[in-house]
Amino acid sequence: MTVKIPSIFPKITLVGAGPGDPELITVKGLRALRSARAILYDALVSEELLALAPPGAQLVSVGKRAGRHSFSQEAIHLALVEAAMTYGSVVRLKGGDPFVFGRGSEELAFAEAVGIPTEVIPGLSSCIAVPGLQGVPVTARGVSESFWVLTGTTQRGTLSPDLTLAAQSTATIVILMGLHQLPALVALFSQYGKADVPAMIIQSGSTPQEKVITGKVATLADQFRQEGDGGPGIIIIGEVVNLAISVRRALLAKTQSA
Amino acid sequence: MTVKIPSIFPKITLVGAGPGDPELITVKGLRALRSARAILYDALVSEELLALAPPGAQLVSVGKRAGRHSFSQEAIHLALVEAAMTYGSVVRLKGGDPFVFGRGSEELAFAEAVGIPTEVIPGLSSCIAVPGLQGVPVTARGVSESFWVLTGTTQRGTLSPDLTLAAQSTATIVILMGLHQLPALVALFSQYGKADVPAMIIQSGSTPQEKVITGKVATLADQFRQEGDGGPGIIIIGEVVNLAISVRRALLAKTQSA
Repeated sequence: MTVKIPSIFPKITLVGAGPGDPELITVKGLRALRSARAILYDALVSEELLALAPPGAQLVSVGKRAGRHSFSQEAIHLALVEAAMTYGSVVRLKGGDPFVFGRGSEELAFAEAVGIPTEVIPGLSSCIAVPGLQGVPVTARGVSESFWVLTGTTQRGTLSPDLTLAAQSTATIVILMGLHQLPALVALFSQYGKADVPAMIIQSGSTPQEKVITGKVATLADQFRQEGDGGPGIIIIGEVVNLAISVRRALLAKTQSA
Repeated sequence: MTVKIPSIFPKITLVGAGPGDPELITVKGLRALRSARAILYDALVSEELLALAPPGAQLVSVGKRAGRHSFSQEAIHLALVEAAMTYGSVVRLKGGDPFVFGRGSEELAFAEAVGIPTEVIPGLSSCIAVPGLQGVPVTARGVSESFWVLTGTTQRGTLSPDLTLAAQSTATIVILMGLHQLPALVALFSQYGKADVPAMIIQSGSTPQEKVITGKVATLADQFRQEGDGGPGIIIIGEVVNLAISVRRALLAKTQSA
Protein backbone atom coordinates (compact mmCIF):
# COMPACT_ATOMS: atom_id res chain seq x y z
CA MET A 1 0.00 0.00 0.00
CA THR A 2 1.42 3.34 -0.99
CA VAL A 3 0.67 6.63 0.70
CA LYS A 4 -0.96 8.94 -1.81
CA ILE A 5 -0.26 12.64 -1.61
CA PRO A 6 -3.66 14.31 -1.46
CA SER A 7 -4.57 16.37 -4.48
CA ILE A 8 -5.08 20.10 -4.15
CA PHE A 9 -8.73 21.17 -4.41
CA PRO A 10 -8.56 24.91 -4.93
CA LYS A 11 -11.39 26.92 -3.40
CA ILE A 12 -11.68 30.57 -2.41
CA THR A 13 -14.09 31.48 0.38
CA LEU A 14 -14.82 35.16 0.83
CA VAL A 15 -15.51 35.69 4.55
CA GLY A 16 -16.72 38.83 6.30
CA ALA A 17 -14.92 39.24 9.64
CA GLY A 18 -17.44 41.71 11.06
CA PRO A 19 -16.81 45.15 12.57
CA GLY A 20 -13.89 44.40 14.90
CA ASP A 21 -14.92 42.31 17.93
CA PRO A 22 -13.61 38.84 16.96
CA GLU A 23 -16.77 37.23 18.41
CA LEU A 24 -18.88 39.12 15.86
CA ILE A 25 -17.80 36.81 13.03
CA THR A 26 -20.45 34.25 12.06
CA VAL A 27 -20.28 30.63 13.19
CA LYS A 28 -19.93 29.65 9.52
CA GLY A 29 -17.16 32.19 8.92
CA LEU A 30 -15.24 30.90 11.94
CA ARG A 31 -15.60 27.33 10.70
CA ALA A 32 -14.18 28.30 7.30
CA LEU A 33 -11.31 30.12 9.01
CA ARG A 34 -10.54 27.08 11.17
CA SER A 35 -10.25 24.76 8.17
CA ALA A 36 -8.36 27.11 5.81
CA ARG A 37 -4.93 26.21 4.46
CA ALA A 38 -4.21 29.86 3.67
CA ILE A 39 -5.78 33.13 4.83
CA LEU A 40 -5.38 36.41 2.98
CA TYR A 41 -6.51 39.20 5.27
CA ASP A 42 -7.10 42.94 5.35
CA ALA A 43 -5.59 45.52 7.67
CA LEU A 44 -8.85 45.85 9.67
CA VAL A 45 -9.01 42.15 10.63
CA SER A 46 -8.23 41.48 14.32
CA GLU A 47 -5.22 39.54 15.59
CA GLU A 48 -7.55 37.47 17.77
CA LEU A 49 -9.32 36.10 14.70
CA LEU A 50 -6.09 35.25 12.92
CA ALA A 51 -4.96 33.37 16.04
CA LEU A 52 -7.84 30.93 15.41
CA ALA A 53 -6.38 29.77 12.10
CA PRO A 54 -5.23 26.13 12.14
CA PRO A 55 -1.55 25.42 12.83
CA GLY A 56 0.46 25.57 9.65
CA ALA A 57 -2.01 27.75 7.76
CA GLN A 58 -0.37 30.48 5.68
CA LEU A 59 -1.32 33.96 6.91
CA VAL A 60 -0.86 36.65 4.31
CA SER A 61 -1.56 40.34 4.93
CA VAL A 62 -2.82 42.08 1.81
CA GLY A 63 -3.92 45.22 3.63
CA LYS A 64 -4.06 48.49 1.77
CA ARG A 65 -3.76 50.90 4.72
CA ALA A 66 -1.93 54.16 4.22
CA GLY A 67 1.74 54.21 5.16
CA ARG A 68 2.28 50.47 4.96
CA HIS A 69 3.34 48.06 2.25
CA SER A 70 0.53 48.21 -0.23
CA PHE A 71 -0.94 45.58 -2.53
CA SER A 72 -2.71 46.64 -5.70
CA GLN A 73 -6.12 45.05 -6.34
CA GLU A 74 -4.58 43.11 -9.23
CA ALA A 75 -1.84 41.79 -6.94
CA ILE A 76 -4.52 40.59 -4.47
CA HIS A 77 -6.33 38.76 -7.28
CA LEU A 78 -3.15 36.98 -8.33
CA ALA A 79 -2.14 36.20 -4.74
CA LEU A 80 -5.58 34.67 -4.09
CA VAL A 81 -5.43 32.43 -7.14
CA GLU A 82 -1.83 31.43 -6.49
CA ALA A 83 -2.67 30.54 -2.87
CA ALA A 84 -5.66 28.44 -3.97
CA MET A 85 -3.55 26.54 -6.53
CA THR A 86 -0.77 25.98 -3.98
CA TYR A 87 -2.65 25.28 -0.75
CA GLY A 88 -6.21 24.40 -1.78
CA SER A 89 -8.69 25.93 0.62
CA VAL A 90 -8.18 29.69 0.88
CA VAL A 91 -10.12 32.12 3.05
CA ARG A 92 -10.17 35.73 1.94
CA LEU A 93 -10.93 37.48 5.22
CA LYS A 94 -12.26 41.02 4.91
CA GLY A 95 -13.35 43.49 7.60
CA GLY A 96 -17.12 44.00 7.91
CA ASP A 97 -19.07 42.45 5.04
CA PRO A 98 -17.07 41.68 1.88
CA PHE A 99 -19.62 43.46 -0.34
CA VAL A 100 -20.04 46.79 1.47
CA PHE A 101 -17.44 49.17 0.02
CA GLY A 102 -14.96 46.34 -0.21
CA ARG A 103 -13.80 45.02 -3.54
CA GLY A 104 -15.00 41.52 -2.74
CA SER A 105 -17.08 41.39 -5.88
CA GLU A 106 -14.03 41.92 -8.09
CA GLU A 107 -12.11 39.21 -6.23
CA LEU A 108 -15.02 36.79 -6.59
CA ALA A 109 -15.32 37.54 -10.32
CA PHE A 110 -11.60 37.00 -10.88
CA ALA A 111 -11.63 33.64 -9.11
CA GLU A 112 -14.74 32.56 -11.04
CA ALA A 113 -13.18 33.67 -14.33
CA VAL A 114 -10.18 31.39 -13.83
CA GLY A 115 -12.46 28.51 -12.83
CA ILE A 116 -11.76 28.31 -9.09
CA PRO A 117 -14.84 27.37 -7.02
CA THR A 118 -15.95 30.14 -4.69
CA GLU A 119 -18.16 30.59 -1.66
CA VAL A 120 -19.41 33.74 0.08
CA ILE A 121 -19.91 33.94 3.84
CA PRO A 122 -21.32 37.37 4.68
CA GLY A 123 -20.19 39.36 7.71
CA LEU A 124 -21.70 42.01 9.96
CA SER A 125 -21.28 45.37 8.27
CA SER A 126 -20.34 48.22 10.58
CA CYS A 127 -23.07 50.33 8.95
CA ILE A 128 -25.78 48.47 10.90
CA ALA A 129 -23.89 46.68 13.68
CA VAL A 130 -21.82 49.56 15.04
CA PRO A 131 -24.74 51.97 15.64
CA GLY A 132 -26.73 48.97 16.91
CA LEU A 133 -24.18 48.33 19.65
CA GLN A 134 -24.89 51.88 20.91
CA GLY A 135 -28.62 51.15 20.90
CA VAL A 136 -29.05 53.23 17.74
CA PRO A 137 -31.40 51.44 15.32
CA VAL A 138 -30.96 52.34 11.64
CA THR A 139 -34.75 52.14 11.37
CA ALA A 140 -37.34 52.72 14.08
CA ARG A 141 -41.12 52.78 13.88
CA GLY A 142 -42.37 56.36 13.77
CA VAL A 143 -38.82 57.75 13.57
CA SER A 144 -37.16 56.44 10.40
CA GLU A 145 -38.54 54.10 7.77
CA SER A 146 -35.35 53.58 5.76
CA PHE A 147 -31.58 53.92 5.87
CA TRP A 148 -29.10 54.87 3.20
CA VAL A 149 -25.46 53.82 3.36
CA LEU A 150 -22.96 55.93 1.47
CA THR A 151 -19.23 56.48 1.30
CA GLY A 152 -17.47 59.78 1.81
CA THR A 153 -14.66 58.57 -0.42
CA THR A 154 -15.61 57.95 -4.01
CA GLN A 155 -13.43 56.63 -6.80
CA ARG A 156 -13.03 60.21 -8.03
CA GLY A 157 -12.13 61.59 -4.57
CA THR A 158 -15.08 64.00 -4.58
CA LEU A 159 -18.35 63.91 -2.63
CA SER A 160 -20.76 61.46 -4.26
CA PRO A 161 -23.78 63.10 -6.00
CA ASP A 162 -25.89 60.61 -4.04
CA LEU A 163 -24.96 62.53 -0.88
CA THR A 164 -26.82 65.60 -2.17
CA LEU A 165 -29.96 63.51 -2.61
CA ALA A 166 -29.35 61.83 0.75
CA ALA A 167 -29.25 65.23 2.46
CA GLN A 168 -32.81 65.82 1.20
CA SER A 169 -34.27 62.47 2.19
CA THR A 170 -35.86 61.42 5.47
CA ALA A 171 -33.74 58.25 5.57
CA THR A 172 -31.25 57.57 8.34
CA ILE A 173 -27.90 58.36 6.70
CA VAL A 174 -24.85 56.21 7.42
CA ILE A 175 -21.57 57.37 5.90
CA LEU A 176 -18.53 55.10 5.83
CA MET A 177 -15.02 56.39 5.17
CA GLY A 178 -16.27 59.97 5.45
CA LEU A 179 -14.38 61.43 8.42
CA HIS A 180 -11.81 63.23 6.24
CA GLN A 181 -14.72 64.91 4.41
CA LEU A 182 -16.55 65.92 7.60
CA PRO A 183 -16.55 69.74 7.07
CA ALA A 184 -17.88 69.30 3.50
CA LEU A 185 -20.52 66.83 4.71
CA VAL A 186 -21.64 69.16 7.50
CA ALA A 187 -21.91 72.05 5.01
CA LEU A 188 -23.94 69.92 2.59
CA PHE A 189 -26.43 68.62 5.15
CA SER A 190 -26.76 72.08 6.76
CA GLN A 191 -27.52 73.57 3.33
CA TYR A 192 -30.57 71.29 3.15
CA GLY A 193 -31.89 72.30 6.57
CA LYS A 194 -30.33 69.44 8.51
CA ALA A 195 -28.05 71.48 10.81
CA ASP A 196 -30.02 70.51 13.93
CA VAL A 197 -30.49 66.83 13.08
CA PRO A 198 -28.87 64.53 15.68
CA ALA A 199 -25.61 63.01 14.50
CA MET A 200 -23.01 60.60 15.82
CA ILE A 201 -19.50 59.47 15.00
CA ILE A 202 -18.34 56.03 16.11
CA GLN A 203 -14.67 55.14 15.69
CA SER A 204 -13.22 51.64 16.12
CA GLY A 205 -16.74 50.35 16.78
CA SER A 206 -17.12 47.09 18.79
CA THR A 207 -13.47 47.15 19.89
CA PRO A 208 -11.90 48.18 23.24
CA GLN A 209 -10.77 51.40 21.47
CA GLU A 210 -14.34 52.37 20.57
CA LYS A 211 -14.95 56.13 20.68
CA VAL A 212 -18.39 57.72 20.38
CA ILE A 213 -19.12 61.39 19.68
CA THR A 214 -22.77 62.47 19.92
CA GLY A 215 -24.07 65.83 18.79
CA LYS A 216 -25.89 67.29 15.84
CA VAL A 217 -24.90 67.94 12.24
CA ALA A 218 -23.84 71.55 12.88
CA THR A 219 -21.53 70.68 15.78
CA LEU A 220 -20.06 67.40 14.56
CA ALA A 221 -16.98 68.69 12.70
CA ASP A 222 -15.87 70.81 15.67
CA GLN A 223 -16.50 67.98 18.14
CA PHE A 224 -14.51 65.59 15.99
CA ARG A 225 -11.60 68.03 15.73
CA GLN A 226 -11.50 68.22 19.53
CA GLU A 227 -12.36 64.67 20.55
CA GLY A 228 -11.79 62.38 17.56
CA ASP A 229 -8.94 59.95 17.27
CA GLY A 230 -7.06 58.58 14.29
CA GLY A 231 -9.05 55.38 13.77
CA PRO A 232 -11.56 54.63 11.04
CA GLY A 233 -15.14 55.52 11.82
CA ILE A 234 -18.69 55.91 10.65
CA ILE A 235 -21.07 58.87 10.70
CA ILE A 236 -24.78 58.47 11.47
CA ILE A 237 -27.20 61.32 10.73
CA GLY A 238 -30.86 61.07 11.78
CA GLU A 239 -33.36 61.29 14.61
CA VAL A 240 -32.56 57.66 15.51
CA VAL A 241 -29.37 58.95 17.18
CA ASN A 242 -31.63 60.18 20.00
CA LEU A 243 -32.49 56.53 20.71
CA ALA A 244 -28.89 55.74 21.75
CA ILE A 245 -28.78 54.26 25.25
CA SER A 246 -26.35 57.00 26.34
CA VAL A 247 -28.62 59.77 25.03
CA ARG A 248 -31.71 58.30 26.69
CA ARG A 249 -29.91 57.90 30.01
CA ALA A 250 -28.67 61.49 29.92
CA LEU A 251 -32.21 62.67 29.19
CA LEU A 252 -33.59 60.57 32.05
CA ALA A 253 -30.99 61.94 34.49
CA LYS A 254 -31.83 65.49 33.41
CA THR A 255 -35.58 64.89 33.91
CA GLN A 256 -35.04 63.37 37.34
CA SER A 257 -32.81 66.20 38.57
CA ALA A 258 -35.18 68.90 37.29
CA MET B 1 -23.24 24.92 55.71
CA THR B 2 -26.48 25.79 53.99
CA VAL B 3 -27.07 25.67 50.28
CA LYS B 4 -27.95 29.13 49.12
CA ILE B 5 -30.47 29.50 46.32
CA PRO B 6 -28.77 31.67 43.74
CA SER B 7 -30.30 35.09 43.25
CA ILE B 8 -31.86 36.01 39.99
CA PHE B 9 -29.81 38.50 37.97
CA PRO B 10 -32.20 39.76 35.32
CA LYS B 11 -30.67 40.64 31.97
CA ILE B 12 -32.13 40.95 28.49
CA THR B 13 -29.85 40.32 25.52
CA LEU B 14 -31.19 41.30 22.12
CA VAL B 15 -29.66 38.87 19.60
CA GLY B 16 -29.89 38.96 15.80
CA ALA B 17 -30.29 35.43 14.46
CA GLY B 18 -29.28 36.32 10.89
CA PRO B 19 -31.14 35.65 7.64
CA GLY B 20 -32.10 31.98 8.09
CA ASP B 21 -29.11 29.63 7.88
CA PRO B 22 -28.49 28.81 11.56
CA GLU B 23 -24.71 29.02 11.00
CA LEU B 24 -25.07 32.69 10.03
CA ILE B 25 -25.59 33.73 13.65
CA THR B 26 -22.51 35.33 15.23
CA VAL B 27 -20.23 33.43 17.59
CA LYS B 28 -21.23 35.89 20.33
CA GLY B 29 -24.93 35.45 19.61
CA LEU B 30 -24.60 31.68 19.79
CA ARG B 31 -22.76 31.95 23.10
CA ALA B 32 -25.58 34.10 24.54
CA LEU B 33 -28.14 31.61 23.26
CA ARG B 34 -26.28 28.71 24.85
CA SER B 35 -26.25 30.33 28.28
CA ALA B 36 -29.80 31.72 28.27
CA ARG B 37 -32.36 30.65 30.88
CA ALA B 38 -35.22 31.79 28.66
CA ILE B 39 -35.45 32.58 24.92
CA LEU B 40 -38.23 34.65 23.40
CA TYR B 41 -38.12 34.18 19.64
CA ASP B 42 -39.74 35.40 16.44
CA ALA B 43 -41.51 33.38 13.77
CA LEU B 44 -38.55 33.68 11.37
CA VAL B 45 -36.03 32.07 13.74
CA SER B 46 -34.94 28.55 12.70
CA GLU B 47 -35.68 25.38 14.67
CA GLU B 48 -32.00 24.44 14.38
CA LEU B 49 -30.97 27.50 16.38
CA LEU B 50 -33.56 26.90 19.07
CA ALA B 51 -32.26 23.33 19.39
CA LEU B 52 -28.96 24.82 20.61
CA ALA B 53 -30.58 26.32 23.72
CA PRO B 54 -29.40 24.74 26.97
CA PRO B 55 -31.52 21.95 28.47
CA GLY B 56 -34.23 23.36 30.68
CA ALA B 57 -34.26 26.80 29.03
CA GLN B 58 -37.74 28.21 28.51
CA LEU B 59 -38.53 28.65 24.80
CA VAL B 60 -41.31 31.14 24.14
CA SER B 61 -42.61 31.97 20.67
CA VAL B 62 -43.74 35.58 20.41
CA GLY B 63 -44.02 35.56 16.61
CA LYS B 64 -46.39 37.94 14.92
CA ARG B 65 -46.93 36.05 11.64
CA ALA B 66 -50.30 36.30 9.95
CA GLY B 67 -52.78 33.54 10.71
CA ARG B 68 -51.16 32.46 13.96
CA HIS B 69 -51.55 33.40 17.57
CA SER B 70 -50.38 36.96 17.74
CA PHE B 71 -48.62 38.88 20.48
CA SER B 72 -49.00 42.65 20.60
CA GLN B 73 -45.79 44.63 20.99
CA GLU B 74 -46.85 45.56 24.52
CA ALA B 75 -47.37 41.88 25.37
CA ILE B 76 -43.84 41.13 24.14
CA HIS B 77 -42.43 43.89 26.37
CA LEU B 78 -44.20 42.49 29.41
CA ALA B 79 -43.26 38.89 28.58
CA LEU B 80 -39.60 39.91 28.25
CA VAL B 81 -39.52 41.67 31.61
CA GLU B 82 -41.45 38.89 33.32
CA ALA B 83 -39.05 36.27 31.93
CA ALA B 84 -36.03 38.28 33.09
CA MET B 85 -37.45 38.66 36.62
CA THR B 86 -38.33 34.94 36.75
CA TYR B 87 -35.40 33.26 35.03
CA GLY B 88 -32.59 35.83 34.98
CA SER B 89 -30.73 35.71 31.70
CA VAL B 90 -33.11 36.17 28.78
CA VAL B 91 -32.25 36.15 25.09
CA ARG B 92 -34.61 37.98 22.76
CA LEU B 93 -33.87 36.25 19.46
CA LYS B 94 -34.95 38.13 16.36
CA GLY B 95 -34.56 37.23 12.67
CA GLY B 96 -31.91 39.22 10.78
CA ASP B 97 -30.59 42.19 12.77
CA PRO B 98 -32.76 43.38 15.67
CA PHE B 99 -32.63 46.99 14.47
CA VAL B 100 -33.54 46.64 10.79
CA PHE B 101 -37.33 46.95 10.54
CA GLY B 102 -37.70 45.04 13.76
CA ARG B 103 -39.00 46.69 16.87
CA GLY B 104 -35.87 45.83 18.83
CA SER B 105 -35.33 49.44 19.78
CA GLU B 106 -38.70 49.61 21.55
CA GLU B 107 -37.96 46.39 23.42
CA LEU B 108 -34.57 47.69 24.50
CA ALA B 109 -36.07 50.99 25.66
CA PHE B 110 -38.76 49.23 27.69
CA ALA B 111 -36.24 46.99 29.45
CA GLU B 112 -33.99 49.98 30.17
CA ALA B 113 -36.92 51.99 31.51
CA VAL B 114 -37.74 49.34 34.11
CA GLY B 115 -34.07 49.09 35.08
CA ILE B 116 -33.16 45.71 33.60
CA PRO B 117 -29.60 45.55 32.22
CA THR B 118 -29.47 45.02 28.46
CA GLU B 119 -27.02 43.99 25.81
CA VAL B 120 -27.22 44.10 22.01
CA ILE B 121 -25.62 41.46 19.79
CA PRO B 122 -26.20 42.44 16.17
CA GLY B 123 -27.08 39.92 13.46
CA LEU B 124 -26.64 39.65 9.71
CA SER B 125 -29.41 41.60 8.06
CA SER B 126 -30.90 39.97 4.97
CA CYS B 127 -30.60 43.31 3.15
CA ILE B 128 -26.84 42.82 2.69
CA ALA B 129 -26.27 39.11 3.38
CA VAL B 130 -28.97 37.60 1.15
CA PRO B 131 -27.91 39.38 -2.08
CA GLY B 132 -24.28 38.72 -1.05
CA LEU B 133 -24.87 34.98 -1.02
CA GLN B 134 -25.87 35.27 -4.71
CA GLY B 135 -22.68 37.18 -5.43
CA VAL B 136 -24.62 40.44 -5.65
CA PRO B 137 -22.72 43.22 -3.86
CA VAL B 138 -24.85 46.11 -2.57
CA THR B 139 -21.99 48.39 -3.60
CA ALA B 140 -19.41 47.85 -6.34
CA ARG B 141 -16.67 50.11 -7.62
CA GLY B 142 -17.78 51.81 -10.83
CA VAL B 143 -21.29 50.34 -10.58
CA SER B 144 -22.91 51.59 -7.37
CA GLU B 145 -21.50 53.84 -4.69
CA SER B 146 -24.31 53.53 -2.14
CA PHE B 147 -27.29 51.41 -1.12
CA TRP B 148 -30.63 52.39 0.33
CA VAL B 149 -32.70 49.94 2.35
CA LEU B 150 -36.46 50.58 2.53
CA THR B 151 -39.61 48.77 3.49
CA GLY B 152 -42.60 48.19 1.24
CA THR B 153 -44.82 48.10 4.30
CA THR B 154 -45.02 51.31 6.26
CA GLN B 155 -46.90 51.96 9.47
CA ARG B 156 -49.63 53.64 7.39
CA GLY B 157 -49.87 50.76 4.90
CA THR B 158 -48.99 53.02 1.96
CA LEU B 159 -45.80 53.26 -0.10
CA SER B 160 -43.19 55.28 1.80
CA PRO B 161 -42.46 58.74 0.31
CA ASP B 162 -38.78 57.75 0.56
CA LEU B 163 -39.46 55.22 -2.21
CA THR B 164 -40.22 58.05 -4.65
CA LEU B 165 -36.85 59.62 -3.89
CA ALA B 166 -35.19 56.19 -4.02
CA ALA B 167 -36.56 55.64 -7.54
CA GLN B 168 -34.68 58.79 -8.62
CA SER B 169 -31.36 57.97 -6.98
CA THR B 170 -28.43 56.01 -8.36
CA ALA B 171 -28.19 53.94 -5.17
CA THR B 172 -28.71 50.19 -5.14
CA ILE B 173 -32.24 49.82 -3.76
CA VAL B 174 -33.08 47.00 -1.35
CA ILE B 175 -36.73 46.67 -0.35
CA LEU B 176 -37.76 44.45 2.55
CA MET B 177 -41.35 43.35 3.10
CA GLY B 178 -42.32 44.70 -0.30
CA LEU B 179 -43.50 41.67 -2.29
CA HIS B 180 -47.20 42.41 -1.71
CA GLN B 181 -46.58 45.91 -3.14
CA LEU B 182 -44.67 44.67 -6.18
CA PRO B 183 -46.97 46.05 -8.94
CA ALA B 184 -46.99 49.49 -7.27
CA LEU B 185 -43.21 49.40 -6.85
CA VAL B 186 -42.69 48.40 -10.49
CA ALA B 187 -44.96 51.25 -11.61
CA LEU B 188 -43.12 53.76 -9.43
CA PHE B 189 -39.62 52.80 -10.57
CA SER B 190 -40.75 52.59 -14.22
CA GLN B 191 -42.22 56.09 -13.96
CA TYR B 192 -38.71 57.37 -13.13
CA GLY B 193 -37.09 55.66 -16.12
CA LYS B 194 -35.96 52.53 -14.29
CA ALA B 195 -38.01 49.95 -16.24
CA ASP B 196 -34.90 48.35 -17.74
CA VAL B 197 -32.78 48.35 -14.58
CA PRO B 198 -31.79 44.81 -13.48
CA ALA B 199 -33.81 43.55 -10.54
CA MET B 200 -33.95 40.44 -8.39
CA ILE B 201 -36.24 38.84 -5.84
CA ILE B 202 -34.80 36.45 -3.27
CA GLN B 203 -37.22 34.50 -1.06
CA SER B 204 -36.20 32.47 2.00
CA GLY B 205 -32.60 33.58 1.44
CA SER B 206 -29.80 31.40 2.89
CA THR B 207 -32.19 28.50 3.59
CA PRO B 208 -32.75 25.24 1.64
CA GLN B 209 -36.02 26.79 0.38
CA GLU B 210 -34.20 29.76 -1.20
CA LYS B 211 -35.81 30.96 -4.43
CA VAL B 212 -34.22 33.51 -6.76
CA ILE B 213 -35.95 35.42 -9.56
CA THR B 214 -33.74 37.53 -11.83
CA GLY B 215 -35.04 40.01 -14.36
CA LYS B 216 -35.51 43.73 -14.70
CA VAL B 217 -37.88 46.18 -13.05
CA ALA B 218 -40.48 45.99 -15.85
CA THR B 219 -40.70 42.19 -15.82
CA LEU B 220 -40.41 41.51 -12.09
CA ALA B 221 -44.09 41.58 -11.10
CA ASP B 222 -45.07 39.14 -13.86
CA GLN B 223 -42.15 36.83 -13.09
CA PHE B 224 -43.06 36.82 -9.41
CA ARG B 225 -46.70 36.00 -10.17
CA GLN B 226 -45.54 33.00 -12.20
CA GLU B 227 -42.55 31.77 -10.20
CA GLY B 228 -42.76 33.22 -6.70
CA ASP B 229 -43.66 31.25 -3.62
CA GLY B 230 -45.36 32.22 -0.42
CA GLY B 231 -42.26 32.94 1.69
CA PRO B 232 -40.89 36.32 2.78
CA GLY B 233 -38.45 37.92 0.42
CA ILE B 234 -36.40 40.92 -0.57
CA ILE B 235 -36.25 42.96 -3.76
CA ILE B 236 -32.97 44.33 -5.14
CA ILE B 237 -32.98 46.97 -7.87
CA GLY B 238 -29.76 48.14 -9.49
CA GLU B 239 -26.99 47.36 -11.97
CA VAL B 240 -25.25 45.29 -9.27
CA VAL B 241 -27.78 42.51 -10.00
CA ASN B 242 -25.77 41.85 -13.18
CA LEU B 243 -22.83 40.84 -10.96
CA ALA B 244 -24.73 37.82 -9.58
CA ILE B 245 -22.76 34.62 -10.11
CA SER B 246 -25.72 33.10 -11.98
CA VAL B 247 -26.02 36.11 -14.32
CA ARG B 248 -22.28 36.16 -15.06
CA ARG B 249 -22.25 32.42 -15.79
CA ALA B 250 -25.23 32.73 -18.14
CA LEU B 251 -23.48 35.59 -19.96
CA LEU B 252 -20.27 33.59 -20.24
CA ALA B 253 -22.11 30.55 -21.63
CA LYS B 254 -23.87 32.77 -24.18
CA THR B 255 -20.56 34.35 -25.27
CA GLN B 256 -18.89 30.96 -25.63
CA SER B 257 -21.71 29.45 -27.70
CA ALA B 258 -21.97 32.47 -30.01
